Amino acid sequence: MWKAIINMPSKQPKSLFLNDKNLCLTTDLYQLTMIAGYFECEKNHKSTFELFVRNLPEKRTYLIAAGLEQAIHYLRELRFTDEYLKYLRGLPVFKNVSRGFFDYLRNFRFSGDVYAVPEGTVIFANEPIIRITASLIEAQIIETYLLSIINYQTLIASKASRVVHASGGREVIDFGTRRAHGPQAGVLAARACFIGGCAGTSNVLAAYELGIPPIGTAAHSWVMAYDDEYESYEDFHKVFPDNTILLIDTYDTIKGARLATKIGKKLKGVRLDSGNITLLSKRVRKILDDAGLGHVKITASGDLNEYKISQMLDKGACIDSFGVGTEMVTSKDIPALGGVYKLVEQEKEGISMPKMKFSKDKSTCPAKKQGYRFLNNKGMFRKDIIGLVDEEFDGKALLLPVMKKGKLLHKIPTVQQIQKTARKNISKLPDRFKALNCKTAYPVTISKELRQIRDRTIRSRLY
Amino acid sequence: MWKAIINMPSKQPKSLFLNDKNLCLTTDLYQLTMIAGYFECEKNHKSTFELFVRNLPEKRTYLIAAGLEQAIHYLRELRFTDEYLKYLRGLPVFKNVSRGFFDYLRNFRFSGDVYAVPEGTVIFANEPIIRITASLIEAQIIETYLLSIINYQTLIASKASRVVHASGGREVIDFGTRRAHGPQAGVLAARACFIGGCAGTSNVLAAYELGIPPIGTAAHSWVMAYDDEYESYEDFHKVFPDNTILLIDTYDTIKGARLATKIGKKLKGVRLDSGNITLLSKRVRKILDDAGLGHVKITASGDLNEYKISQMLDKGACIDSFGVGTEMVTSKDIPALGGVYKLVEQEKEGISMPKMKFSKDKSTCPAKKQGYRFLNNKGMFRKDIIGLVDEEFDGKALLLPVMKKGKLLHKIPTVQQIQKTARKNISKLPDRFKALNCKTAYPVTISKELRQIRDRTIRSRLY
Repeated sequence: MWKAIINMPSKQPKSLFLNDKNLCLTTDLYQLTMIAGYFECEKNHKSTFELFVRNLPEKRTYLIAAGLEQAIHYLRELRFTDEYLKYLRGLPVFKNVSRGFFDYLRNFRFSGDVYAVPEGTVIFANEPIIRITASLIEAQIIETYLLSIINYQTLIASKASRVVHASGGREVIDFGTRRAHGPQAGVLAARACFIGGCAGTSNVLAAYELGIPPIGTAAHSWVMAYDDEYESYEDFHKVFPDNTILLIDTYDTIKGARLATKIGKKLKGVRLDSGNITLLSKRVRKILDDAGLGHVKITASGDLNEYKISQMLDKGACIDSFGVGTEMVTSKDIPALGGVYKLVEQEKEGISMPKMKFSKDKSTCPAKKQGYRFLNNKGMFRKDIIGLVDEEFDGKALLLPVMKKGKLLHKIPTVQQIQKTARKNISKLPDRFKALNCKTAYPVTISKELRQIRDRTIRSRLY
Repeated sequence: MWKAIINMPSKQPKSLFLNDKNLCLTTDLYQLTMIAGYFECEKNHKSTFELFVRNLPEKRTYLIAAGLEQAIHYLRELRFTDEYLKYLRGLPVFKNVSRGFFDYLRNFRFSGDVYAVPEGTVIFANEPIIRITASLIEAQIIETYLLSIINYQTLIASKASRVVHASGGREVIDFGTRRAHGPQAGVLAARACFIGGCAGTSNVLAAYELGIPPIGTAAHSWVMAYDDEYESYEDFHKVFPDNTILLIDTYDTIKGARLATKIGKKLKGVRLDSGNITLLSKRVRKILDDAGLGHVKITASGDLNEYKISQMLDKGACIDSFGVGTEMVTSKDIPALGGVYKLVEQEKEGISMPKMKFSKDKSTCPAKKQGYRFLNNKGMFRKDIIGLVDEEFDGKALLLPVMKKGKLLHKIPTVQQIQKTARKNISKLPDRFKALNCKTAYPVTISKELRQIRDRTIRSRLY
């Protein structure tokens, strides 16, 4: 068996990286067959699609919109270069498609209008997160990428927000890169976790690209590389005198804590990564305090999530910050967000036609929509109404214009600004919707006018 | 609130793509602080690390190793360029680190030895998947990236293998890109799913890069873009006469099936995506057969997984192929693989020192190890023994040499060849370990010599 594997034809190992050029293939084949069909059948009417989540996943009472910046990058950079066009033309499925279609792709630029809720905004089921109006071909081809980028970052920002909330003001750091779904997911997760309220990330590329504080000190291998545990602490302190955070559980947490105190006043922190962390944190706190090291912080890590953190704090764990990895960057309890992107309206000969899908349990709501958010007299979120785009409400409109005819209308906020938006949003969401065991749904209703259009569309079946 | 978001400092939207240059930052900060520490403290002994999975996740009875090709790409390309070195030098944590360290990084090339199980190999808990022997710094810096790439692809290849097995010979197609954890995860998932036995992918970039068959026809929006459902079918058939696979559930599956038959003999397939698919598939099969279209295939999709597929087939569903997305590319029931990378041995002054970690529930097994696989007289996998690297066994060694002093020893197999390896491996794994409800673990034991070394290490605490 092995022999067969070793004697293979030559091939350079592939990175499978994305880049601005291969973006055009980062999609599902059926988007390309459909647009070829639309092109050949001259079905390129002005169309509106909306990206939204049908139902909040179980255990999620709100979502934090995230990923728009990467979506905008995609819309601005999407091109079809000759190398990839040649590949597409050679696929058997396209053999009856005219040369004109590939010429169209060669000149392709996204030139549609984009409305979106700003990243960091709290959103709920069925509220449009992005609304695209463009020619049918332009609006269709972008579906897969938009979903992939918005689904993941929204999933993770929402999860991180829960973890941060459970930590009750203590810092949460993203430690998840090694368990994220590949290296790029690690970077996207770091961004989304920061939006969700994390204080930093272990991912250096995310730190570099986004200005997120990079956090990290040492792993078990540092201690194991030495024959003597204390010698490993001393050496670490020598090189990082102002950042001496020691991992003390390699052999025995309590012994490790006692050894760590020998570093003295300059010791900055210790990290616990295994065992009964609640219990150990109390004992370690006492050891540190008894040694006059009340300022030394205790960090906990090791398969943490919002439930465990909440329990640990309820039981009086002495922890100052949490390093959270796997559970946060994979949103382990709910590892996928079912965002969808659906045609809701088309213009034909100047007339707008609402469009809907009737598939069982998957029917959609027609017409261009807008989410309106109503606040109570204390400025807290009270209810949302999903209405038509031109309805007049006292509520705040959630979707804002982002691109007009393919041009970006506004500057892109930094993740620091987005984090602030998220924090403000979360502070306005009543506490009962943030409780981990929350069973009540935030009230979101459909406006009377929208309901009428939906009912009319169903009755007329003018789909 | 919106105003604050819109008036932001100018910034181009970031792609957050990886590339050969920024690979050096695609790691956890603590890898960089640790190697700086090793450099400054002259602790750069020859060291061996092993990458393995401590416990098989619940509901997994075997894993399929995947991701080695991207790991090799990383090891060959990893460099530290001036742009990134400048960033690192500027981080406060490195302020006491000498210039020599950054000069070292500027000249960094991975020059270690790599052993790995070939991609597509069936593996079990605690069996080394990759073993790296290099200077401590070289072996340490690569941890995060290797884990991220191997954890994800192995997770997905293993999940896909279960889905393919449940499908009992029917084709399974990866439809998951939109729900994968970001766009690169979609490409990596397509690769891993193919290794696990899928017949194709909807992801065009994966198809292009790896030669996987790209699969896809049309979505609901195709049907919705027309006022008349049958007109949408006719137009699709006109453009794709040899690939007319129609999605028939947009309004009513049964009506859709009847309309589809009007296409006639050239109709290739229909796809069901909602409702009670088992029941509908039987009714649709009858409609097709009654119309003399016995050759027309029925594809099912819509939140499928190995359990649902198995149940549908048990109930006699008339389905020829399955499109599987979310559940497969996120491995939704088990969305993370806890692979770890641990120091197991160091050489000091020519003497090999076994290394182990004692942390509660996370202790490791010291010494350079090798997995040995024993077959029964029918050529089926019988048991594995994890032993020392130089033990003599009748069993087949699982780890093979891949790189020597940083140079690739063999050609990289194609994914088609890797898929064959996986298929061969799976065919040799007794059926009882492939059952979805399997409760017995495949027998993996530790050799007597390895146990002695571990016990000796524990006793001597020569860590």
